[in-house]
Amino acid sequence: MNNSPIGIFDSGVGGLTVAREIMRQLPDESIVYFGDTARVPYGSKSRDTIISFSRQIMKFLMTKQVKAIVVACNTASAFALETIAGETDIPVIGVIEPGAKAANEATENGRIGVIATEGTIKSNTYSKVLKEINPKLQVFSKACPLFVPLVEEGWQYDSVTYEIADRYLCDIMSYGIDTLVLGCTHYPLIRRTIQKVVGENVTLVSPAYETAKELESILCDKDIFADGRKVVHDFYVSDSVEKFRNFAGTILPCEVGSVECVNMEQYN
Amino acid sequence: MNNSPIGIFDSGVGGLTVAREIMRQLPDESIVYFGDTARVPYGSKSRDTIISFSRQIMKFLMTKQVKAIVVACNTASAFALETIAGETDIPVIGVIEPGAKAANEATENGRIGVIATEGTIKSNTYSKVLKEINPKLQVFSKACPLFVPLVEEGWQYDSVTYEIADRYLCDIMSYGIDTLVLGCTHYPLIRRTIQKVVGENVTLVSPAYETAKELESILCDKDIFADGRKVVHDFYVSDSVEKFRNFAGTILPCEVGSVECVNMEQYN
Repeated sequence: MNNSPIGIFDSGVGGLTVAREIMRQLPDESIVYFGDTARVPYGSKSRDTIISFSRQIMKFLMTKQVKAIVVACNTASAFALETIAGETDIPVIGVIEPGAKAANEATENGRIGVIATEGTIKSNTYSKVLKEINPKLQVFSKACPLFVPLVEEGWQYDSVTYEIADRYLCDIMSYGIDTLVLGCTHYPLIRRTIQKVVGENVTLVSPAYETAKELESILCDKDIFADGRKVVHDFYVSDSVEKFRNFAGTILPCEVGSVECVNMEQYN
Repeated sequence: MNNSPIGIFDSGVGGLTVAREIMRQLPDESIVYFGDTARVPYGSKSRDTIISFSRQIMKFLMTKQVKAIVVACNTASAFALETIAGETDIPVIGVIEPGAKAANEATENGRIGVIATEGTIKSNTYSKVLKEINPKLQVFSKACPLFVPLVEEGWQYDSVTYEIADRYLCDIMSYGIDTLVLGCTHYPLIRRTIQKVVGENVTLVSPAYETAKELESILCDKDIFADGRKVVHDFYVSDSVEKFRNFAGTILPCEVGSVECVNMEQYN
């Protein structure tokens, strides 16, 4: 038994969709969530910057005695996972490998679409990981930079969002994909609009579910499950506490209790 | 004569529209431009965070021996100008007061619209400054958070952008405004789309022109014009140099020579 918390981090609020899934699948586990709301978004920024931000966040999470870290942000998983995982002894997992595994299991015709931020797409990480899993897969990628601001504007089911999704997706749809990876933590929040555009025959894969499964299997291997006697969920952000609390309240199934603002610059 | 450069800063690339205007009106002046591309955007973040970022940037600009600072970002002008101006002896000007003055001169019916980021609108700074200038003015404001991502997607003249602009602007248009302040440095880049939505009878005011005028008048008052013998434009960013250089090349009339990446965290 190990009642230390799981550390989860994201560029902002999107990673709460991953935290939600971990809470569902592993209800005995305590969580320390960090959202880098002062520096969000990550998706349009460079590899070096994302590595430097992720390293600071890992140092912060280590001060909370976390027993494992989940990089809930696709862009940080693409750019920084390998680097920061090499700098600690605890397990560090990202969302890309679990998402890729799920997509490989879901596809029947071997044609997989990936939509994500500019950074994640440019890194080519999904494509590389998918082809490591199954060299026969064909992968078609598209960056969709307007999806996150559209979600944050609250226009999830709007005709404008449908029109933009249609425009982003028409190219990769023309390749006959039967599976589409939602490679950014915000995208499950517009899942219904995306499904409407791609049609019911395309399976949407959200890495959150598989990431929680992967975490469970690591906790099992290392025999470090919590006993569930005292489950605590603590939230930290780098910008406004109130704004985060409001958004988190709409995503999480539980009460968002403690939210604290921390300055990442002290974790160099 | 004083050949020290003018410091200009912005959350990213938008402030280049202000830098461009300063280059036009004051071609003898050297410029040090800083774009905080690692932490962009500012418009959705809190006052405290923007003050802390702006203070670091001012400290950085002071190391370049600037003789004056232009806060080219509306959100930073709204939240941080007063604070950072009180922490230095050199003149520090923002874009909001010049923009407000221009709007007051342009309006005939006293009804002025202001569009800007969420932060600038929530700060209510444009409205306060406009009413200080002329208490009879009526001000109608609207945050337009999707405009910046639309510009960055390159969809300035797209039907989707027109539809979104129409939706954002219909409320403030219903109040019979005859003048509209483009209260975010990105918005002049979609000026034509905005003009099409509001019609030719509404005057669009971009603070960039008036800000350069205000800077000129300060240099004149203090008698610190440069002699134009050696004009240098240096650019600094906190994220990718190459991405900035590409974008800057599309906005500025001159060759973008030196661009350097600096880590703001050392300026605490």
